[in-house]
Amino acid sequence: MQYHVDSELVAAEDATVSVRDRGFMYGDAAFETLRAYGGRVFEWDAHAERLRRTCCALSLDHGLSDDDLRGRIRETLAANDLDDAYVKLSISRGVQPGKLAPGPVEDPTVVVYVADLPRGGRADRGSEPVWDGPATAAVVETRRIPDAALPAHAKTHNYLNGILARLELGQGGDSEAEDANGDVPDEAIVLDSDENLAEGATSNLFLVSDGVLRTPSLDGPILPGITRRVVLELAEQKGIPVEEGTYGPADLRDADEAFLTNSTWEVRPLAAVEGPDGETAELGAGPVTDRLAEAFDARVERDHYE
Amino acid sequence: MQYHVDSELVAAEDATVSVRDRGFMYGDAAFETLRAYGGRVFEWDAHAERLRRTCCALSLDHGLSDDDLRGRIRETLAANDLDDAYVKLSISRGVQPGKLAPGPVEDPTVVVYVADLPRGGRADRGSEPVWDGPATAAVVETRRIPDAALPAHAKTHNYLNGILARLELGQGGDSEAEDANGDVPDEAIVLDSDENLAEGATSNLFLVSDGVLRTPSLDGPILPGITRRVVLELAEQKGIPVEEGTYGPADLRDADEAFLTNSTWEVRPLAAVEGPDGETAELGAGPVTDRLAEAFDARVERDHYE
Repeated sequence: MQYHVDSELVAAEDATVSVRDRGFMYGDAAFETLRAYGGRVFEWDAHAERLRRTCCALSLDHGLSDDDLRGRIRETLAANDLDDAYVKLSISRGVQPGKLAPGPVEDPTVVVYVADLPRGGRADRGSEPVWDGPATAAVVETRRIPDAALPAHAKTHNYLNGILARLELGQGGDSEAEDANGDVPDEAIVLDSDENLAEGATSNLFLVSDGVLRTPSLDGPILPGITRRVVLELAEQKGIPVEEGTYGPADLRDADEAFLTNSTWEVRPLAAVEGPDGETAELGAGPVTDRLAEAFDARVERDHYE
Repeated sequence: MQYHVDSELVAAEDATVSVRDRGFMYGDAAFETLRAYGGRVFEWDAHAERLRRTCCALSLDHGLSDDDLRGRIRETLAANDLDDAYVKLSISRGVQPGKLAPGPVEDPTVVVYVADLPRGGRADRGSEPVWDGPATAAVVETRRIPDAALPAHAKTHNYLNGILARLELGQGGDSEAEDANGDVPDEAIVLDSDENLAEGATSNLFLVSDGVLRTPSLDGPILPGITRRVVLELAEQKGIPVEEGTYGPADLRDADEAFLTNSTWEVRPLAAVEGPDGETAELGAGPVTDRLAEAFDARVERDHYE
């Protein structure tokens, strides 16, 4: 594999950053995870816009155009002969003098990492989902970082909050190997400081009740997921009633359907969730989830393969 | 300069980590900043203990002994012929398969970064403080991350909260150059979610009122600073009354003396602080600050130079 680091393609083993890069020292970097279908990035404009907002929140003025960044992704996909792929684009301030407060960005570090990822979806075309079944999840004790401490709309390399949430599940460390019978949930559902539903460690959360598609509002400490936004658009197009609001764990427990979204999983049904009380509620897909997953696949098909 | 990376000394320009190192990708790393005086690390045991607690909070079982880590620091100081120095020791889980949840640590990344830093203190011996005068500070709007989201006692590479606090001061970006007349405060005083005093972006906060030395209690989201602990010990030895409690910005405004501590600054008087109301209170050193700064210097003298 070749990755793109600081304006050039380099072999994976040579893809490094200085130990004094602010991305390594402080997690002081912005990133996007994207999906390429048929050789082209899905929803580039939305990702570019979110990246701009992240960099604005960090006062990280890297001076690079969207086209420049998109070009680096294209080059990296082409160099690795990848059509359907996972893409991670990261930008840090690079190496600066040894002060915590950053200086003007003179030499940003820009990294494009890619990995093969089959398209998934569209069972009628024989393609397999990237996940091996509906997700299981548990509501964890780790709370989402409040906006006043770190803006939730900023997608940054400060990702320990999500890692701690996942570790609570028994994922990671030596525990997963010991518990290989599938009892380890796939995703951690994180609550905000007021104990309302926020999101998964790497996904947005949707539930369906009374025929209404519901998802935590961006007024809370929620990452504005690109897949989340596409799903909301598709629901509107399909005439599915939508509510962005404030929900608690009981709303999830009592839902008729639930699913998670992110660029990798697209629309992944949530089969079961263990609540804060330790009780597991059976959820799963249903007519609304199915319609949205189909609509999502059709959107990918239309934009990338037709 | 030579730094120590993955068990060997390398030239500064070759000191790199993979772009897939979890330290770069997620800020998933523990660190300590230490001070060497006369070629030996100050308060190693306390730093080693705090590092253990950080690694425990992150489930980062690196498998390295304290002696091994201390040996790497010694080698790095010796290779650079440094007696009085700033030292940063970082440990990440290294490169792992592409999942957010970490796996067992098989090949941790261990980095020792050093820089020359004169001893400071002891004006009677002609040495200069490492800071160019008492600090100025401002209470900022960025709030400390609550313990429930990220344990405050863990010193990790997720440092954006402190960076955002410093950016609020007008430090960093292009603003500092424009405002080179000294109006930019040195430190950001960060409040917790309940608007109580927590700490500076890179320092612990002390104030003196009614002859009592006061500092925010570790019950709040406070980093347990090593210099903080030494200062509390010295106060006890000197018979200075001490209270670890909960204080608001008004307590700081009305204090008789105030100072900041960290490994680099040691005991640095806080000359003035701009409160949340925009009003600046003049503070500064006084008899208690002076006694503690002298006692701190004497401790360094006794442990490292006699």
